[in-house]
Amino acid sequence: MTTCITCLCPGKPILRERADAVLALVATEFPKVELTFHQQCFLEHGHFAGDDATRLDALVTTANDPEVDAVWFAMGGYGSNRIAADAIAAMGDTARGKTYLGYSDAGTLLGALYRNQIGKPVHGPLAGDIKREDGDDAVRRVLRYLSGQEVALEAGLDDRPTVAFNLMTLAMLVGTDMMPDLTDHVVLVEEVAEHLYAVDRLFFHVTAHLEGVAGLRLGRVSAVPENDRPFGMDEEQIARFWCDKTDIPYLGRADIGHDAQNAIVPFGSR
Amino acid sequence: MTTCITCLCPGKPILRERADAVLALVATEFPKVELTFHQQCFLEHGHFAGDDATRLDALVTTANDPEVDAVWFAMGGYGSNRIAADAIAAMGDTARGKTYLGYSDAGTLLGALYRNQIGKPVHGPLAGDIKREDGDDAVRRVLRYLSGQEVALEAGLDDRPTVAFNLMTLAMLVGTDMMPDLTDHVVLVEEVAEHLYAVDRLFFHVTAHLEGVAGLRLGRVSAVPENDRPFGMDEEQIARFWCDKTDIPYLGRADIGHDAQNAIVPFGSR
Repeated sequence: MTTCITCLCPGKPILRERADAVLALVATEFPKVELTFHQQCFLEHGHFAGDDATRLDALVTTANDPEVDAVWFAMGGYGSNRIAADAIAAMGDTARGKTYLGYSDAGTLLGALYRNQIGKPVHGPLAGDIKREDGDDAVRRVLRYLSGQEVALEAGLDDRPTVAFNLMTLAMLVGTDMMPDLTDHVVLVEEVAEHLYAVDRLFFHVTAHLEGVAGLRLGRVSAVPENDRPFGMDEEQIARFWCDKTDIPYLGRADIGHDAQNAIVPFGSR
Repeated sequence: MTTCITCLCPGKPILRERADAVLALVATEFPKVELTFHQQCFLEHGHFAGDDATRLDALVTTANDPEVDAVWFAMGGYGSNRIAADAIAAMGDTARGKTYLGYSDAGTLLGALYRNQIGKPVHGPLAGDIKREDGDDAVRRVLRYLSGQEVALEAGLDDRPTVAFNLMTLAMLVGTDMMPDLTDHVVLVEEVAEHLYAVDRLFFHVTAHLEGVAGLRLGRVSAVPENDRPFGMDEEQIARFWCDKTDIPYLGRADIGHDAQNAIVPFGSR
């Protein structure tokens, strides 16, 4: 059975050569996958892969297309929050049968889909991650997962419902009308390219909004810029500090992050 | 009548030579002001001006000191959110008679004080702003204000209750138990050293939390880092976009920002 996957860019565009590398890998190794990059992925409108109306239309049309099995977010960056609410409102029954996979900025969409119980939101590598060291493996992992092959999920998943987010993306999502109810959920977070004082600040904000979760696990916090002074705590001390302060169980590290090892985390229960 | 002002650093420390410059200006020009830098201002503990317990103790002791008329936050940076809730809980009746002045990271404290109706929170220059071009004027403005002299407030203030915040600080404050009810308030925001996509993201989050405000005014958005591509909207277009989207009246520009011109905005009604 063929799996039809459409790649979309709800935030920034993907470079053509990266899309071509993904297409080449599919052609060579996944004969039963039919993968398409929506033309929207290559548009440029300021920061974004096309203006809001164009990105919204691509997302809604694809979600409502009965020929498509899975939506794979090809790039993060920034911008899915500008179209998420309108997209959710325009999604019909067909959209409910699909898997939606990505992370980073695309987490806003995963969260909004999860809140509205539309389809199966999954945290995992972007198509654009093919650019990373070992990026081929990240792309293979997603293609195996989306085509129903056996693939290892994030190693710490248990019987509790789980979600995974970029920390900044989650911080901007909390308290909005796209934020899912995470009561009794294990929440995995990762971050990239933020100062440790900013990570601390985000933990302050996010933990204040996560009352009732089952616990928090910390993914990788990578590419931390050097500051004019040391922060004085590492990322795990920061996570423990805010979890302690807000009575959220700190449950250890998680195998997610802005890298090719970024593990797959299906939202919800196993 | 002498005005007693104590400078505190709830986030990062102030350099001794900047404190000395403020003290020299007071000695020369403000004979009726008795200004002290709490020794806590010069401590260093990782990112912070002393550890949380030390900064908390300095703030609580000063707020509860009947000899002190005003608390002037000397530096922003980051860190007042780590002590704000405990500080509020420990403030007694004496703390209610004081003015608390600062901005940037200190906005967390101003917001928490305002929510709890403790004293008079005022958005205005930090003592450390003496380092800026025309910084002497910023410091003079505050000293005049705190000692009861005539001084121009932010020019757009009207009969509606008003607050002013750094955008990031407000974004981290919303939805926490330190956030004041801003129904029917005019909200002024300013930002520094954030990419325009991050400013857009912060507006998404903040406007989602500001239902019921009278409107928003935009201060200066300065020192925007260059990104790998133009964002496609300037800061005022961003503010208008999110105000439109969330039915918040956009009320124009505001004379606040990370600069010496940063005008004084007393929280609440005139």
